[in-house]
Amino acid sequence: MRSKEVHLLERPQGLPTLGQFGIVETDVSDPAAGELLVENIYMSVDPAMRPRLAGQTPLNEAMGGGAIGRVLKSRHAGFKEGDLVESMRGFRQYFVSEGNGLSKLDADGMPLPAYMSVLGLTGLTAYGGLLVTAALKDGESVFVSAAAGSVGSVAAQIAKIKGCYVIGSAGSDSKCRWLKEELKLDAVINYKKEVLRTALKSAAPRGIDVYFDNVGGEHLNAALPRMNALGRIAVCGMISTYNNFGAISEPVTTLSNMIYNRLTMKGFVFYEFEPLRAQFLSDMKRWLKEGRIQYRSTILQGIEQAPAALIGLFSGANTGKMLVQLVKDP
Amino acid sequence: MRSKEVHLLERPQGLPTLGQFGIVETDVSDPAAGELLVENIYMSVDPAMRPRLAGQTPLNEAMGGGAIGRVLKSRHAGFKEGDLVESMRGFRQYFVSEGNGLSKLDADGMPLPAYMSVLGLTGLTAYGGLLVTAALKDGESVFVSAAAGSVGSVAAQIAKIKGCYVIGSAGSDSKCRWLKEELKLDAVINYKKEVLRTALKSAAPRGIDVYFDNVGGEHLNAALPRMNALGRIAVCGMISTYNNFGAISEPVTTLSNMIYNRLTMKGFVFYEFEPLRAQFLSDMKRWLKEGRIQYRSTILQGIEQAPAALIGLFSGANTGKMLVQLVKDP
Repeated sequence: MRSKEVHLLERPQGLPTLGQFGIVETDVSDPAAGELLVENIYMSVDPAMRPRLAGQTPLNEAMGGGAIGRVLKSRHAGFKEGDLVESMRGFRQYFVSEGNGLSKLDADGMPLPAYMSVLGLTGLTAYGGLLVTAALKDGESVFVSAAAGSVGSVAAQIAKIKGCYVIGSAGSDSKCRWLKEELKLDAVINYKKEVLRTALKSAAPRGIDVYFDNVGGEHLNAALPRMNALGRIAVCGMISTYNNFGAISEPVTTLSNMIYNRLTMKGFVFYEFEPLRAQFLSDMKRWLKEGRIQYRSTILQGIEQAPAALIGLFSGANTGKMLVQLVKDP
Repeated sequence: MRSKEVHLLERPQGLPTLGQFGIVETDVSDPAAGELLVENIYMSVDPAMRPRLAGQTPLNEAMGGGAIGRVLKSRHAGFKEGDLVESMRGFRQYFVSEGNGLSKLDADGMPLPAYMSVLGLTGLTAYGGLLVTAALKDGESVFVSAAAGSVGSVAAQIAKIKGCYVIGSAGSDSKCRWLKEELKLDAVINYKKEVLRTALKSAAPRGIDVYFDNVGGEHLNAALPRMNALGRIAVCGMISTYNNFGAISEPVTTLSNMIYNRLTMKGFVFYEFEPLRAQFLSDMKRWLKEGRIQYRSTILQGIEQAPAALIGLFSGANTGKMLVQLVKDP
């Protein structure tokens, strides 16, 4: 069986270009005893993939990333034809597996893209980062950067559910409108039009208790002087840095605010929240059913679009989660 | 009775100048019933005083700061003539008090300057910052900037006592020699002669688990990429920033290291360690008696030297604690 895969051909310097990726056809054999064959339906495209292109991602083989697929053939006792499975083996159409790293998905009546975003790692990242890393308390003042992005939009809405005053930044008027009118954020900043430092000052009349950082650089620089005593900065990502050599950021020069306000800044990665997953799923499904959490996805069609989807993240081509759909959703 | 006081006459921009301070004589009355009269012997001069000159320190009145004095006259039931007292009423020769904010000092056979440094707030800051804020574990790899300074030299030695590999930076060869030869640090960097980033890379072959930051700016920028997973940065001070408007630092551009290594950076102020004081004094007195902690003071003579002492901190005029002695030590 022929399967198209996305390969990294050349390590990008700066913003990746389409020519640095290749769509390569390979043969996928039939599953042997103890194996199963999976056809990917959706694959996730994440900003955090970019820093890995500098070294961790091997050249000239299939890239990896979150995916949801369907079992086409199974000779594995744990899976049967038609099962939905989650894996980290995106960026390819088909794959054979012994089942390691695969988990069966019970969609529970929810659309599959929800499991790639608000009910998946994206949601868990927002939930854990806000409630554990930042130790958010009800009613605090919260700033979320890239608040129309996949993680940011979930973090901002969880903060609203917790009764917080929420400020969000985004890079277009339409994203800002979504944040203000649909997600009901208290204040929004179009960082491409406004000067962040002054805009944040007027958007945060009570200062900031928690900054959920997805951007780094000038966003972080502007947030630090607005932080209240004992404020927490949860560093989820720094998309502004990922295309720079060594992930060098715009200059941050306001870190002395860390001292007198006794701030805590903490970087985190989703896997530390695995123990929370059951609680997270229960909360998030309830919030979705109650209509208290909305989510959007930007879904490009066909594996050939994967490189464009990844590159598009850095110009804000997505609202909410960026996905690639490989075949029709069953 | 006439008393000389140090006043701030004008708010400095950049490095303070002598002309921005005045030595002013005032009258100090005899203590009334319930009051006591104190003559200061030693007063503390600290980098953290500089940021306060931008606003918090009032103009044209006596500045404040840690001091040890002796009771000259007492009409207060809690104090008698000859008692040694600690206060925050430095920068003046004499003062009358109702006893608020004063605590009696039992020198316990130790020299008074020790109570202005290693056994005082300086020591408590190093002890709490390292053991509580940074949660130092025995045997870790530790970097201390301004390691020949008052807090830094204590922090570096506590880390050595805890079996750590300790790297220190300082701004002169003689300070570096003291750190290496007397305090037995494992590696030292003269940051005025070496390029911090490259020097730190070779000085920290096992990476850095804890960075005790007294400097900020380029020191912090160089330390971030060397931090190990789950590393902690305890931000005690940022002396490199204090003379800049708004305490703006040299650019820090390496904060993306916070994410993947899941680092924690935490600012702190000594007063949060008050509950530790008894434990701290017991540990520190034992270490001093065992000869495991050394300390140095740079002691300028006469209250007239107080402005020069403060200004001198920013050119590294001190090794260890900077003090001013007002009268002969009894």
